[in-house]
Amino acid sequence: MTDPTPRVRDLDESELLALIFPLLPTSEGVDVGPGDDAAVVRAGDGRVVVSTDVLVEGRHFRRDWSTGYDVGHRAAMQNLADIAAMGARTTSMVVSLVMPEDLPVDWVTGFARGLADAATPAGAVVVGGDLSGGDAVVVAVTVHGDLQGRAPVLRSGARPGDVVAHAGVLGASAAGLALLTAHAATAADGAPGAPGPLAPFVAAYLRPGSPLAAGPAAADGGATAMLDVSDGLVRDAGRIARASGVSIDLSSGSLSRDVAALVPAAVELAIATDDAAGAHAAHDWVLSGGEDHGLLATFPAQVADRDLPPGFREIGRVVAADDGPQVLLDGDRPEVSPGWDHFRS
Amino acid sequence: MTDPTPRVRDLDESELLALIFPLLPTSEGVDVGPGDDAAVVRAGDGRVVVSTDVLVEGRHFRRDWSTGYDVGHRAAMQNLADIAAMGARTTSMVVSLVMPEDLPVDWVTGFARGLADAATPAGAVVVGGDLSGGDAVVVAVTVHGDLQGRAPVLRSGARPGDVVAHAGVLGASAAGLALLTAHAATAADGAPGAPGPLAPFVAAYLRPGSPLAAGPAAADGGATAMLDVSDGLVRDAGRIARASGVSIDLSSGSLSRDVAALVPAAVELAIATDDAAGAHAAHDWVLSGGEDHGLLATFPAQVADRDLPPGFREIGRVVAADDGPQVLLDGDRPEVSPGWDHFRS
Repeated sequence: MTDPTPRVRDLDESELLALIFPLLPTSEGVDVGPGDDAAVVRAGDGRVVVSTDVLVEGRHFRRDWSTGYDVGHRAAMQNLADIAAMGARTTSMVVSLVMPEDLPVDWVTGFARGLADAATPAGAVVVGGDLSGGDAVVVAVTVHGDLQGRAPVLRSGARPGDVVAHAGVLGASAAGLALLTAHAATAADGAPGAPGPLAPFVAAYLRPGSPLAAGPAAADGGATAMLDVSDGLVRDAGRIARASGVSIDLSSGSLSRDVAALVPAAVELAIATDDAAGAHAAHDWVLSGGEDHGLLATFPAQVADRDLPPGFREIGRVVAADDGPQVLLDGDRPEVSPGWDHFRS
Repeated sequence: MTDPTPRVRDLDESELLALIFPLLPTSEGVDVGPGDDAAVVRAGDGRVVVSTDVLVEGRHFRRDWSTGYDVGHRAAMQNLADIAAMGARTTSMVVSLVMPEDLPVDWVTGFARGLADAATPAGAVVVGGDLSGGDAVVVAVTVHGDLQGRAPVLRSGARPGDVVAHAGVLGASAAGLALLTAHAATAADGAPGAPGPLAPFVAAYLRPGSPLAAGPAAADGGATAMLDVSDGLVRDAGRIARASGVSIDLSSGSLSRDVAALVPAAVELAIATDDAAGAHAAHDWVLSGGEDHGLLATFPAQVADRDLPPGFREIGRVVAADDGPQVLLDGDRPEVSPGWDHFRS
């Protein structure tokens, strides 16, 4: 029986590129686009913001859970969030894709569509890339951003008295991953079913969103520190705390609506795992779930007294680091999962 | 027995980064370096040149042939060459590294040293990166360059009558790879010995050089088209031919010194493979050997009549594409190997 599915081994590099390029966003804002030794992009204010991230099959995603579209969307979004977290707007990106030779061509075109659907609304274009064979899918994206004259918002500028604010969702991605894992463990074929009303949680894991416009808005609104929440609220808040030499005291009351939003997923997890402890997962997802790609920022108190920039809401306060920089919850050390180290399996 | 070799699994990401960063070049020319969500680098003339390349273990290198130092050096150099081929100078790079958990820590620090030794003389600094676990080593480098006010030299500007010129070596990397392959096939353990007088060819494969300064010099000298010779002289000349709508007629006489330089490797190959045909390999290496990362450029004839920029020598002429764009050798279609498609195994 012949395999009816076109695979990447059936095409050479130029044929694959000819399928991919028409799907990707390009723009007039680029002096030289893909196809030469290098691209030339404009850097309006004489600086360029740069970030890079790599996604590895089996570490950051599973191909039986994530489609090519999902992986493309996620690869773009987590990079776009890094640029937003500096207070900048993403202008362009380059993408390297390593592919097993039996990868369906549809996976690759889906990847390009997912990348485009995340990048286009942000105004980001794809100016180059590289393709290679390999035993597992690896995606490396480098993004470039424009500060449009703003000072970059670093992690190191938080001061005691500042308001701690967050834009975006907390814990939804971790809830989705937990549901996928639980369902896969009980499914005969290891592939998760689509848990109807819980689909939004799964989608939050597979295709996270990020409040990208809130990044430049925070910079314009006087943010003193900011980062992308990729490894969990407490862990990432700890990065601001250490870089700034302060402590961050989160308010559980301000997070209660985030916890409440995850209760349906927590209940479903408790049923799926036949373990009542699952119902308590919502609290942990909010504090330590990664990959939601919201923005955590600090603002001078007088900014918060007027109005935080659109998308942000207060979730705590910056306090003096009397016992060394740390993250507190209502004044005490919170009990949270140790967090996620991509580097370890 | 315990394993005395420190492996990357013995460290967490921050511990590994603490080992790597001190080895990498950094500079005052960077507004925000590694450690925040993104770096901020200066783009002096309001534009930035961008290129990216990925190297995959088992496709682009073998860990029993290439040390970490070799892979770092090569990953940097092939990217630096892409920037030079636009007529620009590399200013900064970001690096993603995927590592099996049993990779020796020494491999990683060697990688950082090789990257630094290639980048530092070029004035390029490392401003960020990402680490991940994975089943094979994958290196993705993105480089940024400064045109310093120059127009970028594209592949599409060659005109009939232009002189075709090359800077760098031709075929040495392919010769080195052939020798490594032949020796590995005859060695009991599959690992190649160090073939004494042939070591320069092997080094040219493991740690290619590139005449980086010749890129901006070519742009200043009026080059009409330019690219980095990464896939072989004939194949890459074909890219200029097609992009420019011209044909390129190479002169075998001008390449004879390149062929002569490879004869010792060709003779050694003939002996190692017990095949007299090996002695004819030198010609093929010059025309179709990849990964030497020389620069192929075209210049108006009046430039060549004065003086080509330092490092370049004439190897042919641009002619009208009467029968469609093609690459000729002394006026005829050359017989060459089909060239190297990284994408296919």
